[in-house]
Amino acid sequence: MKSSRRSLVPRPWFASLCLLASIVQAQDVAEIPEAVRENVELLIQKGLDDTVGYAFVRDLTTEVGPRLAGSEAEERARIWAMQELAELGFANIRIEPFKIPYWSRRVDQASIVSPAPQALVITALGGSTSTPPGGVEAEVIRFENMNELRAASTDVVSGKIVFIDEKMTRTQDGSGYGMAVRKRRNCATTTSEKGGVACLIRSVGTQGRRFAHTGLMARSAAVGDGPAAALSPPDAEQLTRLLENGPVKLRLDIQVETRPEALSGNVIAEVEGRERPEEVVLIACHLDSWDLGTGAVDDAAGCGIVVSAAHLILSLDEAPRRSIRVVLYGAEEVGLLGGYAYAKRYVNEMDQHILAAESDFGADKIWRFETRFGDGALPYARAIQQILEPLGIAPGHNLAFGGPDISMLPKLGVPVVTPRQDGWDYFDVHHTPDDTFDKIDQSKLNQNIATYAAFAYLAAEMDWDFR
Amino acid sequence: MKSSRRSLVPRPWFASLCLLASIVQAQDVAEIPEAVRENVELLIQKGLDDTVGYAFVRDLTTEVGPRLAGSEAEERARIWAMQELAELGFANIRIEPFKIPYWSRRVDQASIVSPAPQALVITALGGSTSTPPGGVEAEVIRFENMNELRAASTDVVSGKIVFIDEKMTRTQDGSGYGMAVRKRRNCATTTSEKGGVACLIRSVGTQGRRFAHTGLMARSAAVGDGPAAALSPPDAEQLTRLLENGPVKLRLDIQVETRPEALSGNVIAEVEGRERPEEVVLIACHLDSWDLGTGAVDDAAGCGIVVSAAHLILSLDEAPRRSIRVVLYGAEEVGLLGGYAYAKRYVNEMDQHILAAESDFGADKIWRFETRFGDGALPYARAIQQILEPLGIAPGHNLAFGGPDISMLPKLGVPVVTPRQDGWDYFDVHHTPDDTFDKIDQSKLNQNIATYAAFAYLAAEMDWDFR
Repeated sequence: MKSSRRSLVPRPWFASLCLLASIVQAQDVAEIPEAVRENVELLIQKGLDDTVGYAFVRDLTTEVGPRLAGSEAEERARIWAMQELAELGFANIRIEPFKIPYWSRRVDQASIVSPAPQALVITALGGSTSTPPGGVEAEVIRFENMNELRAASTDVVSGKIVFIDEKMTRTQDGSGYGMAVRKRRNCATTTSEKGGVACLIRSVGTQGRRFAHTGLMARSAAVGDGPAAALSPPDAEQLTRLLENGPVKLRLDIQVETRPEALSGNVIAEVEGRERPEEVVLIACHLDSWDLGTGAVDDAAGCGIVVSAAHLILSLDEAPRRSIRVVLYGAEEVGLLGGYAYAKRYVNEMDQHILAAESDFGADKIWRFETRFGDGALPYARAIQQILEPLGIAPGHNLAFGGPDISMLPKLGVPVVTPRQDGWDYFDVHHTPDDTFDKIDQSKLNQNIATYAAFAYLAAEMDWDFR
Repeated sequence: MKSSRRSLVPRPWFASLCLLASIVQAQDVAEIPEAVRENVELLIQKGLDDTVGYAFVRDLTTEVGPRLAGSEAEERARIWAMQELAELGFANIRIEPFKIPYWSRRVDQASIVSPAPQALVITALGGSTSTPPGGVEAEVIRFENMNELRAASTDVVSGKIVFIDEKMTRTQDGSGYGMAVRKRRNCATTTSEKGGVACLIRSVGTQGRRFAHTGLMARSAAVGDGPAAALSPPDAEQLTRLLENGPVKLRLDIQVETRPEALSGNVIAEVEGRERPEEVVLIACHLDSWDLGTGAVDDAAGCGIVVSAAHLILSLDEAPRRSIRVVLYGAEEVGLLGGYAYAKRYVNEMDQHILAAESDFGADKIWRFETRFGDGALPYARAIQQILEPLGIAPGHNLAFGGPDISMLPKLGVPVVTPRQDGWDYFDVHHTPDDTFDKIDQSKLNQNIATYAAFAYLAAEMDWDFR
């Protein structure tokens, strides 16, 4: 009782706390009926114990392997996926084909000619043109970053192999990628404009081992403005050290195959809604991968997650009111071409797309649940976020972008969520030969499956409007 | 005083402790004069602050790069090393040439033909023969280990590509290597005897990434009994999973270049002894490397360590009584050919070899100091071990083998020591493309330099006979 008098004199910080508490208390949280809550809890438990998702990732990466967009292997992946989805009991299984320009590597080699002859570890960037047959030899000019190259005069770049040594910052939310990827997208174009013969970049990645990271240049799946390749980090450092001693001449040999048209496609399967099947909750991933690894974290993991989550919902005693639509997009890596094909095809059905999400950020745990809902729908966001808290997932902002292949849907009015995965290690293997099945942790994958099953079921079962 | 009575009644364990203490106390430790001790302490301090060794590793791996035995690059390394040793002020710098059979890879590619076409990450083993031009296609037969292959009948192996999936155990002292390397040495021979067309092994290494580890087969630097290659660990697992589903057909294309004779050589430099220069303390490393990486941990690090340690002794006010001989062996990786050439050349001067050591186990810290001295010389071992204790180095046994290139010297009566490095991570990069300069930690390297400087100086300054 001694301190009662002091507590009657609120301090500024105390007043602030009270205000904050009243705001928090004022936030509405949508109610979830007990029967629905029980189903959600069952789905979460089954998700954490799941074996279907992990097996899906294992078998896709093993029985198909790498799945370059437009290749025979991507077609094998579609057929494989159709069979798996049928065995799992999904409805309305279909391939929705579309055409893409085709690019693949045939040769990508680089070596130091002088002063110290030695091979370098590189990988051609997607969209690179070929060098002349047998390769080109030229002196190297190094830039710290894209801005330095942009500021350089044509005189100093002309006739040279440009080398951009910009490093990438490791972040949990992947925000380091946005900055680092600019050099990959734009290096060849700017080099070409200034008369350079080819562009080499330090790999867009966070690991330090002798893997080079491929990825798309600016022109989606078409042939770009010149030969371009990424160096492994130790090779970027080797080149930098040699350049400190004097001029360095490189030989770069890139040979690519291109075709104006190749076949890709989206694979779709559904859990049909029991009341309004035309209303869909879309959960997605992409089926294609780069050619170097077997595309386990990018993005067989995402496919394992959404397929298994939908399969758990399928195995409930009663289907939810709305449909769950699983979309395994094709040709994501070469410019979100499956995403654009889908948006075009379904443009007149967008108001029946209740919610969309894509899993395409590896296989690590989700740590934050982000939404992009109308203001009036925020109580639904909070209800979902409360459900997910026991999985170690914090509430996130309301500015979610969804995912690459559904990034065009918010503009068409579709609410999206981003169950944000931990990306700390993602860019260690992203687009490298080392993106293989052994990198998948089943318990982390299962936390994703539980999450997707929970929110997708809620969105399909409740009469919530997220717009 | 209360317990004094009890202490008069020794318990058995107390008696044992007393006995142990008396044994320990009975071990003689050779005395080191104060002036010598001061020099040793100065060397250790300078070693811990050293920059010469790290720069040596950096520049050898950068300015020369990979240094395959018998290649033009190994010759460049010898010339480079001669210049460096001259600049550092060594005496009696020389190359002692010898001839070796030459082997190098030209092509080493493997892919799954069926059921799931995809490329595999492999590396040809040193001494592999070529497949027919364009490669061979055959079904794979998997064995858990070499013993299983040995026990298999010719019927089941004939016409097949053998795959030995034996894993390697990670150990601090490197003892896992001895077991694991048997499949690398013997797989092709046994496969060939049983009519198999080629042999693939799971890489001899401890890392799990998509690097394959090369290394020598049984026949030193000659062409072996058949095509043989190592798979990266993820590829070994991929192949194992596919084989669980049914037959797997592989295409293997290995093309190698061989010549009966190529030039190699040992590079030698000395700190001349002030009293008995004909008596030598030999500290060694090997200058050659495999072709995949730049040979930083194997074994530019060892060369940086011994060169810098000798250089520290060279920079003392007064040279030690005996000479320090630094030997940078050639052609170690292809069968210790530099070691054998040295032993042959100096066979009549072995009694003037006071002590020998080779650093060839990476760049991590030394944790134990092992000797191979005559029993009467153990007080000298203990004196050295006492000096090294502040560096975190424990006394080791008296069964040291010295190091690969000096492994033939104990038989010729030369005492050796093994300053045992921590090998926990060594086989993560050993013989892979990832053996590059960025793996070197300068402070750990310097602990090695301090150690080598200390014991080499003591052995050269004191009148100790280690035999």
